[in-house]
Amino acid sequence: MIFPRIALTPGEPAGIGPDLCIRLAQQPQPCELVAIADPELLRERAEQLGLPLTIRPFDRNKPADPVPAGGLTVLPVALAEPARCGRLNPANSAYVLETIRLATQGCVDNTFAAMVTAPVHKGVINDAGIPFSGHTEFIAAITGGTPVMMLATPGLRVALVTTHLPLSQVSAAISPELLTNIIRLLDKDLRRRFAIIKPKILVCGLNPHAGENGHLGREEIEIIEPTLEALRCEGINLYGPLPADTLFTPKYLDTADVVLAMYHDQGLPVLKHKGFGQAVNITLGLPIVRTSVDHGTALELAGTGKASLGSLQFALQTALDMLPSHQTRQ
Amino acid sequence: MIFPRIALTPGEPAGIGPDLCIRLAQQPQPCELVAIADPELLRERAEQLGLPLTIRPFDRNKPADPVPAGGLTVLPVALAEPARCGRLNPANSAYVLETIRLATQGCVDNTFAAMVTAPVHKGVINDAGIPFSGHTEFIAAITGGTPVMMLATPGLRVALVTTHLPLSQVSAAISPELLTNIIRLLDKDLRRRFAIIKPKILVCGLNPHAGENGHLGREEIEIIEPTLEALRCEGINLYGPLPADTLFTPKYLDTADVVLAMYHDQGLPVLKHKGFGQAVNITLGLPIVRTSVDHGTALELAGTGKASLGSLQFALQTALDMLPSHQTRQ
Repeated sequence: MIFPRIALTPGEPAGIGPDLCIRLAQQPQPCELVAIADPELLRERAEQLGLPLTIRPFDRNKPADPVPAGGLTVLPVALAEPARCGRLNPANSAYVLETIRLATQGCVDNTFAAMVTAPVHKGVINDAGIPFSGHTEFIAAITGGTPVMMLATPGLRVALVTTHLPLSQVSAAISPELLTNIIRLLDKDLRRRFAIIKPKILVCGLNPHAGENGHLGREEIEIIEPTLEALRCEGINLYGPLPADTLFTPKYLDTADVVLAMYHDQGLPVLKHKGFGQAVNITLGLPIVRTSVDHGTALELAGTGKASLGSLQFALQTALDMLPSHQTRQ
Repeated sequence: MIFPRIALTPGEPAGIGPDLCIRLAQQPQPCELVAIADPELLRERAEQLGLPLTIRPFDRNKPADPVPAGGLTVLPVALAEPARCGRLNPANSAYVLETIRLATQGCVDNTFAAMVTAPVHKGVINDAGIPFSGHTEFIAAITGGTPVMMLATPGLRVALVTTHLPLSQVSAAISPELLTNIIRLLDKDLRRRFAIIKPKILVCGLNPHAGENGHLGREEIEIIEPTLEALRCEGINLYGPLPADTLFTPKYLDTADVVLAMYHDQGLPVLKHKGFGQAVNITLGLPIVRTSVDHGTALELAGTGKASLGSLQFALQTALDMLPSHQTRQ
C-alpha cells in the first residue's frame, strides 16, 4: 500500500483555515499531511486553541512518513505581517497565493499526491491589487486543463456547467461546445478518479420543467437535447434534460452517479442542504487531484475552536479516495 | 367548532387524480369533502382499485355533514367521453376546466371553505384548442388577485418571485414593483392564513453568492437591496438578499418562516428534495384558500393504486390549517 503525501493549504490566515488544519492534525491520518503555511502562524493558533502541535519540517528527499497525532509536517512560507484572527490584511495576500502555488506545483511534479485547500478570501486578495477570480482558476492557470466544479456529499454529487456567472448571462453561455467539453471531462474523471465503470449522469434542463416542450424556453430543444444525443453516441450514459425541481428525488437519484446542473443556484442549494457540514468541492478536469472545503473563511470564528471540521475531513477523505493507489486497491 | 366543506377536484380523468380522491375518501376526515367530478368515473375507478365508494349527491342547501369512511359527497359534472386510465383525451378537457371553475366559484360565494386540486395535464387542454397556462392562472382569472406560488413541506416553505418563465427572462422580470407586490402579499397571507404574527422572510439573491458585492451581477445592489430596505421600513421582517446555496441550512432556516426564491429552479429543487411525497403547492394572494398536490398526473400509475397519497393528504391538511376557523382556534 502506498502511503501518500497530501498538500494542505490553510488559506486565509485571519480565518478558520489554520484552526481546521491544526485540528485535523490532532487525528492520526492514513497519509502524511504537509501544511504549506507560516509555522509561526500555526504555533500561535494552536496555542490560542489550547491544542498541542509538533511541527516537523518538510523534507522532499524523504519518503512520506506517518506523523503522530498532534504533529504536522510543514513546508514553511513566511507571512508578510503577523496574522490576527478576524482581521483581513492585504499585506498577506501574496503569502496566501504563494502557498497555493507551491501546493499546485508540488502536485504537478508529483511531490504531492493531491492538494486539499481551506478557504481563501477573494476580496482581500483583490484589495491587495492582485487580480484573482478564485482558487480554481488560479490552480488551473498553473496546471492547464479545463476545471469542472463538482460538489459531493454522501449520497449526492452535483457538477456544474457554468459556475460564477451572473444569472442573466447563463442562457447565452450554454453552448454545444461548452456542454460537450464539460460532459466529456465529467464522464472521464468519474471513471478515472472514482472508479465508476460507466457513470450515469443526470442532466438538468436550463428552464423550469426543462422547458416543457418549448413552452418555457427553447434551449433544451435547440442546444441541450441534440448535444446529449451526440454524446450518447460516444457511449456516455446521459439522462435528460430533466426538470431540476423533480430530479433530486429518490426515483432519479437512487441509481445516478452525478447530477449535472446548468448553473450554480440550480444545483448547489440542494447539495449544501443535504450535505450540511459534510460537503466537499472537487475540481475535475485538471491533471491533478484537488479538493476543497465547501465553506468560507468564517472570520468571526477564527481562533474560537467553534468552526466545524466536517467539510475539511471529508475533503481529505475524498482526495485520498481519488488517488490512483486507492482506485487500484478497489 | 365549524365543520368545513372543502371542494376537491380530481383533475385529469386519465391520471391518478381520481384514484387519490377515492383513496382519500377511505379515511374519516374532519371536513366534508365535495368531489367535483363525474360520479361514473369515480365508481369505475373505485371498482378498478378494489375500494368501496358510496356516493352522496351534493346538496348546497344542507349544512356540511361528516361522511363515513368509504363515502364521498359529489357535485356531478359529466365527462364528454368515458375516461380510460393513461389515455389522454382532448374531448374531456372542457370537463376538467368546468370542475375547477365550479370549485373556484364555490369558494368565492362561500359554498366551500377552500379548494384542493389534484393535477391536470396542461398539454391535453391545449390540444383541445383551449388556451390554458395553468391551474393557478385559471383560478386567479375568476377570483381576481395576484397569485403567489408557495410550496411547503414540514419544516420548510418556499415562495417564488417568478414562476414559469424561461431562465433567460428572469433577470429582466425582477423589478422593484414585482418584488414589492409579491413580498407584501406573502407577508400579509402568512399573517392571515398561517397565524404567524411577524413572518421572518429570507430572500435569496438573484445571482450566485447573491452577486458577491456586484462582482457576479448587479441586480442585488440596484434592485433587490433597495426594495428590501423600503419594505423593512413598512415593518416587514426581511433578511437578505442571501446566497441561495448557503441559505438552505439550519443556521438560516431554523428561525425562518419562509424562503423567497427569485425563480423556480432556485427554490423548488430543495423543497421537493426535502419534502418528497409530502409537499403542497399553496396559492397565496387570492381571496380564497387553494392548495394543490406538488406532482403531475402520473398517467402510467392511474388505476394501479401505486401512486403516493402523501401530497394530497398534506394539501388537504394545509387547506384546513389555513381556514379562519382554524386560525381563530389557535
